Amino acid sequence: MKKLMNRAEDFIPEMLEGLYAAHGDQITYADDKPTCLVSCHKKENKVAIVTGGGSGHLPLFLGYVGDGMLDGCAIGGIFQSPSADDMLTVTKAVEAGKGVLYILGNYNGDKYNFKMAGEMADMEYDIETASVIAGDDVASGPVPEPGEVGIRRGVAGIFFVYKCAGAAADEGMSLEEVKAIAERASHNVRTMGVALSPCTVPRVGKPSFTIAEDEMELGMGIHGEPGIKRCKLMSANEVVDEMLGKILPDLPFAAGDEVAVLVNGLGATPLEEQYLVYGCVSKRLKEKQLNVHRTYVGEFATSLEMAGLSISIFKLDDELKRLLDKPANTPFFKQF
Amino acid sequence: MKKLMNRAEDFIPEMLEGLYAAHGDQITYADDKPTCLVSCHKKENKVAIVTGGGSGHLPLFLGYVGDGMLDGCAIGGIFQSPSADDMLTVTKAVEAGKGVLYILGNYNGDKYNFKMAGEMADMEYDIETASVIAGDDVASGPVPEPGEVGIRRGVAGIFFVYKCAGAAADEGMSLEEVKAIAERASHNVRTMGVALSPCTVPRVGKPSFTIAEDEMELGMGIHGEPGIKRCKLMSANEVVDEMLGKILPDLPFAAGDEVAVLVNGLGATPLEEQYLVYGCVSKRLKEKQLNVHRTYVGEFATSLEMAGLSISIFKLDDELKRLLDKPANTPFFKQF
Repeated sequence: MKKLMNRAEDFIPEMLEGLYAAHGDQITYADDKPTCLVSCHKKENKVAIVTGGGSGHLPLFLGYVGDGMLDGCAIGGIFQSPSADDMLTVTKAVEAGKGVLYILGNYNGDKYNFKMAGEMADMEYDIETASVIAGDDVASGPVPEPGEVGIRRGVAGIFFVYKCAGAAADEGMSLEEVKAIAERASHNVRTMGVALSPCTVPRVGKPSFTIAEDEMELGMGIHGEPGIKRCKLMSANEVVDEMLGKILPDLPFAAGDEVAVLVNGLGATPLEEQYLVYGCVSKRLKEKQLNVHRTYVGEFATSLEMAGLSISIFKLDDELKRLLDKPANTPFFKQF
Repeated sequence: MKKLMNRAEDFIPEMLEGLYAAHGDQITYADDKPTCLVSCHKKENKVAIVTGGGSGHLPLFLGYVGDGMLDGCAIGGIFQSPSADDMLTVTKAVEAGKGVLYILGNYNGDKYNFKMAGEMADMEYDIETASVIAGDDVASGPVPEPGEVGIRRGVAGIFFVYKCAGAAADEGMSLEEVKAIAERASHNVRTMGVALSPCTVPRVGKPSFTIAEDEMELGMGIHGEPGIKRCKLMSANEVVDEMLGKILPDLPFAAGDEVAVLVNGLGATPLEEQYLVYGCVSKRLKEKQLNVHRTYVGEFATSLEMAGLSISIFKLDDELKRLLDKPANTPFFKQF
């Protein structure tokens, strides 16, 4: 295992030390618990937005806490849910008079713990909470039945949910309204990933899966969950065709739609390849008469040093577009 | 070679297609040559700043073209200097009435071509140019003699030179003044890197060097130039001690100095490790009574998918600090 680290058991505490040292002007933590990250710039009389999830996905989850996006984040071990207690601690710290919205990925541990935290917040502290569970990975299950969460995993597309909900909360919308925005954003985003190499969790010490030197896996999850097709290396054009071939019919996206696009590096894939892939995506979307309003390329939701990337397409309407366009200033995401 | 690409010979043209498609609101190119990148937001009556260098280092070099930083960039093949012709094309496109400053890394091809471009700009187009050659890598040679460029390679620390010079040019300073700022910034920054794994240039198809599974190399350059020490994997604390042990005495940095710090991922090293390393750096600097004014962590100057990182320390004075603090908005670097 080749990593710049000290003892494996100190990996997360030491990463957090560096994080707070680097961004002490923007983020701090509640109740002396570094795993309970909150924004330094608390605003009153707004819906507070909280997320949480396992470590190993930077800038997801904690990196989006800041002006115009999220208010707090409970931080778990690598690929492990944070505790319900930490979620409650964050909830109490960020609550600002209009209730708290939880936005989380569709993973059992996170769902279970956020449900507990919400119940404790309500019963013990009279804080109203609501939850939106994002599941944008088209490779991980069928479209959920109306009103159901289903089994689709949440991956990089949650960035769009954070961005729009954060801007909505900043505009003073009510908990019900911010929740509706987050649900619509979540409904409108579709993602698929491709992995070229695995990652190694420090405390495990060996790669999360094996894959031959001439193979890739389409649809793999950000914790190494099996994808839908393992195959010989394909060209970038072929990969993009396969991925958009799953993503576009899924919503479905239709000619004339306005969209935002995220090409997200999973960790080890250079920006050069991410841009090359975005070039292919851009051409295909033009052929399909989808209009790209905004493009994001870079690492937004990683899996440690996994090589590969994901493509997310987010369908906009006038309101989501307005919210997406608002400025934001977090340690990891800045938009003027 | 595991890469998301089409034909190796199309790697750079296709990457640039994606880049212009993604950031067409901020960057474009001159004379129908995608390798001649310029900002969309040309301002008149200011010193224009041009850089250039090989591809494979994103966001270096081109990623810093934008408001508050650079005006244009000539783009070479992977790890290859751009042509003097392209540099001249960019120079003519960005010139805005007060001369053009070239800021480049200390590499022979780049130096030779920028010298030619400057001579052609002067003789054929009556454009005044000046050059600042950055060489911040303490592992690559001794401190140059006063007035000499020496043999030290330019690496991630050039980011600070761009940032301060860009802000100075925006303030309306003269070519001589902006050059003096860039020279002082360049003089005040020191960098050292560590590599854990190599990268593969697409047209070459095999790794740039080999290194055992239990080894790292201190002081390696961003094109795989040999470092100063190949050794067994060390802990993050030990690596930081070795690197700061070279960096700090070199300027030297002294107790009470105010500094900015950049921990720069070389490509495949996750942000988690970069922050963990910054935590170690932060503690050591505190012990040495160096005061950290600003911290940057992330990928600023990469080497495709090389694993490893570099640490840069930049000594501030009142003027450099003011310039560093100014906002900037480029495709890859945004600061409010």
